[in-house]
Amino acid sequence: MQTTTASVPLCPVSSEDDPEQELLCIFGTGDLGRSLGQRLIQAGYRLVYGSRRPHSCGPLPPGTQVATSHEAAAQSAQLIFLCVHREHYDFLESLTPQLKGKVVVDVSNNLKRDLYPEANAEHLQRLIPGAHVVKAFNTLSAWALQNGPSDANRQVYLCGNRTEAKQAVAETATKLGFTVVDRGSLSAARELEDSPLQLFPDWRLPMRLTVGLTAFFFLYVVIRDVIYAYVEQRKDISFRIMVSLANKVFPIVSLIMLSLCYLPGIMAACLQLSRGTKYKRFPDWLDRWMLCRKQLGLVSLAFASLHVLYTLIIPIRYYVRYRLAAITISQIRENKTTAFDTTMAWRTDSYYSMGVLGFGLFLLLGISSLPSVSNILSWREFSFIQSKLGYLTLFICTFHTYLYGWDKFLHLASYKWFTPPSYMLCLIVPSAVLLLKMLLLLPCVDKRLTRIRQGWERADPEDGTRKSLLT
Amino acid sequence: MQTTTASVPLCPVSSEDDPEQELLCIFGTGDLGRSLGQRLIQAGYRLVYGSRRPHSCGPLPPGTQVATSHEAAAQSAQLIFLCVHREHYDFLESLTPQLKGKVVVDVSNNLKRDLYPEANAEHLQRLIPGAHVVKAFNTLSAWALQNGPSDANRQVYLCGNRTEAKQAVAETATKLGFTVVDRGSLSAARELEDSPLQLFPDWRLPMRLTVGLTAFFFLYVVIRDVIYAYVEQRKDISFRIMVSLANKVFPIVSLIMLSLCYLPGIMAACLQLSRGTKYKRFPDWLDRWMLCRKQLGLVSLAFASLHVLYTLIIPIRYYVRYRLAAITISQIRENKTTAFDTTMAWRTDSYYSMGVLGFGLFLLLGISSLPSVSNILSWREFSFIQSKLGYLTLFICTFHTYLYGWDKFLHLASYKWFTPPSYMLCLIVPSAVLLLKMLLLLPCVDKRLTRIRQGWERADPEDGTRKSLLT
Amino acid sequence: MQTTTASVPLCPVSSEDDPEQELLCIFGTGDLGRSLGQRLIQAGYRLVYGSRRPHSCGPLPPGTQVATSHEAAAQSAQLIFLCVHREHYDFLESLTPQLKGKVVVDVSNNLKRDLYPEANAEHLQRLIPGAHVVKAFNTLSAWALQNGPSDANRQVYLCGNRTEAKQAVAETATKLGFTVVDRGSLSAARELEDSPLQLFPDWRLPMRLTVGLTAFFFLYVVIRDVIYAYVEQRKDISFRIMVSLANKVFPIVSLIMLSLCYLPGIMAACLQLSRGTKYKRFPDWLDRWMLCRKQLGLVSLAFASLHVLYTLIIPIRYYVRYRLAAITISQIRENKTTAFDTTMAWRTDSYYSMGVLGFGLFLLLGISSLPSVSNILSWREFSFIQSKLGYLTLFICTFHTYLYGWDKFLHLASYKWFTPPSYMLCLIVPSAVLLLKMLLLLPCVDKRLTRIRQGWERADPEDGTRKSLLT
Repeated sequence: MQTTTASVPLCPVSSEDDPEQELLCIFGTGDLGRSLGQRLIQAGYRLVYGSRRPHSCGPLPPGTQVATSHEAAAQSAQLIFLCVHREHYDFLESLTPQLKGKVVVDVSNNLKRDLYPEANAEHLQRLIPGAHVVKAFNTLSAWALQNGPSDANRQVYLCGNRTEAKQAVAETATKLGFTVVDRGSLSAARELEDSPLQLFPDWRLPMRLTVGLTAFFFLYVVIRDVIYAYVEQRKDISFRIMVSLANKVFPIVSLIMLSLCYLPGIMAACLQLSRGTKYKRFPDWLDRWMLCRKQLGLVSLAFASLHVLYTLIIPIRYYVRYRLAAITISQIRENKTTAFDTTMAWRTDSYYSMGVLGFGLFLLLGISSLPSVSNILSWREFSFIQSKLGYLTLFICTFHTYLYGWDKFLHLASYKWFTPPSYMLCLIVPSAVLLLKMLLLLPCVDKRLTRIRQGWERADPEDGTRKSLLT
Repeated sequence: MQTTTASVPLCPVSSEDDPEQELLCIFGTGDLGRSLGQRLIQAGYRLVYGSRRPHSCGPLPPGTQVATSHEAAAQSAQLIFLCVHREHYDFLESLTPQLKGKVVVDVSNNLKRDLYPEANAEHLQRLIPGAHVVKAFNTLSAWALQNGPSDANRQVYLCGNRTEAKQAVAETATKLGFTVVDRGSLSAARELEDSPLQLFPDWRLPMRLTVGLTAFFFLYVVIRDVIYAYVEQRKDISFRIMVSLANKVFPIVSLIMLSLCYLPGIMAACLQLSRGTKYKRFPDWLDRWMLCRKQLGLVSLAFASLHVLYTLIIPIRYYVRYRLAAITISQIRENKTTAFDTTMAWRTDSYYSMGVLGFGLFLLLGISSLPSVSNILSWREFSFIQSKLGYLTLFICTFHTYLYGWDKFLHLASYKWFTPPSYMLCLIVPSAVLLLKMLLLLPCVDKRLTRIRQGWERADPEDGTRKSLLT
Repeated sequence: MQTTTASVPLCPVSSEDDPEQELLCIFGTGDLGRSLGQRLIQAGYRLVYGSRRPHSCGPLPPGTQVATSHEAAAQSAQLIFLCVHREHYDFLESLTPQLKGKVVVDVSNNLKRDLYPEANAEHLQRLIPGAHVVKAFNTLSAWALQNGPSDANRQVYLCGNRTEAKQAVAETATKLGFTVVDRGSLSAARELEDSPLQLFPDWRLPMRLTVGLTAFFFLYVVIRDVIYAYVEQRKDISFRIMVSLANKVFPIVSLIMLSLCYLPGIMAACLQLSRGTKYKRFPDWLDRWMLCRKQLGLVSLAFASLHVLYTLIIPIRYYVRYRLAAITISQIRENKTTAFDTTMAWRTDSYYSMGVLGFGLFLLLGISSLPSVSNILSWREFSFIQSKLGYLTLFICTFHTYLYGWDKFLHLASYKWFTPPSYMLCLIVPSAVLLLKMLLLLPCVDKRLTRIRQGWERADPEDGTRKSLLT
């Protein structure tokens, strides 16, 4: 493809039309080097190892060779995998002439984030400026490097400054069965190196919030139900913790989390309205909040699902069966008959119906945020589902909770120890969100907001400073 | 990298091995131009704006410049983003010499479909034939252009006639964090331009059908249950609307929709059999019907899920508890004992069991039609699930409904006001589909159909006209 | 682009900047050739057919031509689709000069696996060594070739030895609307050719196991419940088969399958510990077992879901309602009152609560193994979910089953006909797995295992033979 001059030709890596297998080089005979080597041999490559102690390195995959020196190894191949720790990169400087024009694949990871000021791969590129450094394979587990792709180890992320070098690495990764995702230039190396060190970084804030809310409300209902009953009525109803109280906490946390998904959007709109521009950055906490809306929603959905399951097992519970039978028996013994209450039937049926419909819509939101589903939606479709249907879900679920309360809001007996029932507490945020959203939908407000979002700015004398000048 | 000679070489876009940042150009300083510019600056590009009024355009992203003229801007960069409305494209004609060999990215959208006879990008290519027009980024929201990829804004669709130009744009999109999907030549531009203007185009027919069927059956059961009870027995059972009647309508619509998934396939087979060839096109309505089978199935699954949830909340309903207690109490008061009815136990348990199994299979069908799941299935596996398991699901669900009816088909009392119960109505289509499918599976019919589908055609004198002649 | 000699230039396939449509060639006018041709014509290609009987081939898509000879057809196009059966490949040998440098796309499939010692495409490449053979399109159904991509027919897998040839084919596939997945060199052809012949090859072992376990436990509970009751008490409780017994078998099989997911991992750890190295291969059966863990888990999840549904319909069953009413009635008639049993309430509520939480976690495991979800997880996140949360799920579900048994383990009456109840049988494997896992987590064992997995090996005199020697 290239007219490739004699000196050090680039990218003759693809052994097409050449029956002989391509020769690759691995620097480092540690576990990673051996695992990768084994896999490369299986994929039909020839392999030569470069090692600091060529005569004393451990057992290597059968069919491989160890070169007498790093120089010899580097000279023999066009593509070199670097399987040594960053601390030992220095020896590469002396190989500069041999590595000139070669593709060097940095597969290294660090033990901690921010250990070094510079990404390993960028550091490497500065050490050997003549070589074409490609960061790749570091996001895979050693197991995947040895045994091939599976589940979360299917994609090889790579980045590098030279397209041909990336293509050469991509081709090797493809031959090993992986899917390649190009992440751009070497400046993305830091991100790739950080990625395997993190465990659900986006979920940290939502999880903390979830744990906090769950703990608070659990304590709250235990005090108001179990401890209250014990102190005031000397009754032990602690068995209710397992199902009844859990089934109070889960829907409460779920509804609050759902409304917290929509609160930052409303705050952002208010900020834009008051600032009169969309070109000012939001405060950091709002930015961070907006970025974890999806996670908040998914946690909320998980809790809503638990609520549904806990609700559906109610009729098979021993306690419930016992109580129902006791009521029937007492009715007969006392020869009383309670009349059928149509209002009660309407209210409870509406309550359940809202719950089912709300949960159905919520499931739809959840399904549409599966990566493969949101990928096939256009952004208008996605935002229709997440915004329009999302608010509808929030409305129905809030309505469901109001129906649960019904007229108990007015009964003094509900306020044990002068505290409101837990479901009243959980109605505050969603009610506020729905109210504010309605205000934002008023034509006069909506029109102004739309203009701001289309780039219009309120004339502001201080604004002039931000205008950039022409050359 | 390139020594970019005077002649205007193509594709020097990748700034590899060049420490200096690549310079891009944006024509248009409106909202879109500013959003995109901000993002490009963040990704490390240098940027120059071309503007009609270089001295009076609004605030631009810090670090950018405005060129004195479009000519100057066009000259300075190899890749030009065109962020102006189609109505203002005309000024580009005068830039033909400057744009020769440059990559011009058309990101425009129209307000409505079919506003112009030609796609914007194709119109543009005709205006500046020397430039390489690439349609890209138009399917993203302005928000995504400014803030980077998220959910439904992850994929950049592009099309264009020149591979190198597309690669240059793809590289920039990759650097911005997007995934690139190549949609072929510029003739696909129309499709890309229509895509953001549509809201679930494939769902229109199924949604209309759903609304129609739901409305009809809801009215039907309200008349037969609530109004009948009111007129004939002066009883107000309107509270039943919320759960009981909903739980009649949902399964009915679900079963009909499921059978409508399989009806067009059977019609197509009958057509092929009667025509004796597979090379004649189906009528348009059948084609459209066949294309929305997946949507029909998913709506059916959604309704089936609602049916399951509505069924499972039955025992916690106030009405049901009241009635069960009333029955027990009346049995005791009247000192009667009803014997256990084994047939009844068999029948109802079979009915529930069929329901559960049918729903389980239906869920499996739904999961297998998730894009990421169907992608890893071979077509034989996919069609095994969707066809074989699909018919099994239809059969089990139909059987479930027959078990529900049981011997009520024969009781005259079921036919209030001479109308059949709703579940009988809903059995018509699925029964017909299953019957026809069984006929098609008869060896003699099946063999003939298989031959037709393998390309065999019945000898037909009139067919000769369709034979193409050799050169 | 290439320096490729004048005679037959490679890869002028992309008709960029050329208003004229590109000309393709199809060898073979059978059904496949005609379907593919129709689609290519629609996508805007010009087409010429090569046929053995150019004057007597059937009706071809309008707008196509049939060349007078294969030679003429081959000469006219750069990209040739080969739509003939492998048995008729021989005629291509005589076309060697015309096919030199051309891209020949092998779309063939065989009727059975292992019919030939060599993949069709590899055989073809040996026949015409001068041509660039690309295996592609064979994994699509004829329907998709004629009508374009849909669901499971969206991806075109291709492989071949020459990158440029693959790119040319990829471009055509892209124009037809397909997504291209490059599977590397022509040695992958066998795999591609086998793929459409297999129906869920990974599921064979898990499905056999499922059927076996289900059949065994179904028989077991039928004998212990229905037949025992009939023989010993002359009672016919066969109606319980439909729901009660099914709801015994499903959770049992589910729990066993779940524990079988984790057993091979524990076995592998034990093997590694006893061998003192990770570089020895596991026995074949263990390898195969480890590869189907995902399938085992998914089947287990499906059975758990059925268990949940069957459990939730309990209270609406006729039998259950009858029995509950009967108990209430008998209590009144005999004027007895059973006291509320707090231990019973605690135990049953804990039992249900564990069930719900276990199922919730199980669902999470299932969702995280959807391809699109596992793709966005890093391997550390994926293994955290599948391993940590997986063991937690197994623990909770096992605990759920122990709570079900409670003190019945000690009651002799439970052991009808000296056989243990089925749920006791199903506790054996999960209890063993959890016990072994706890042993492996002991610090001393865990430390040793970690070292082995990082590549450490116990010094072994016999090991020396495996060390490879340097050059």
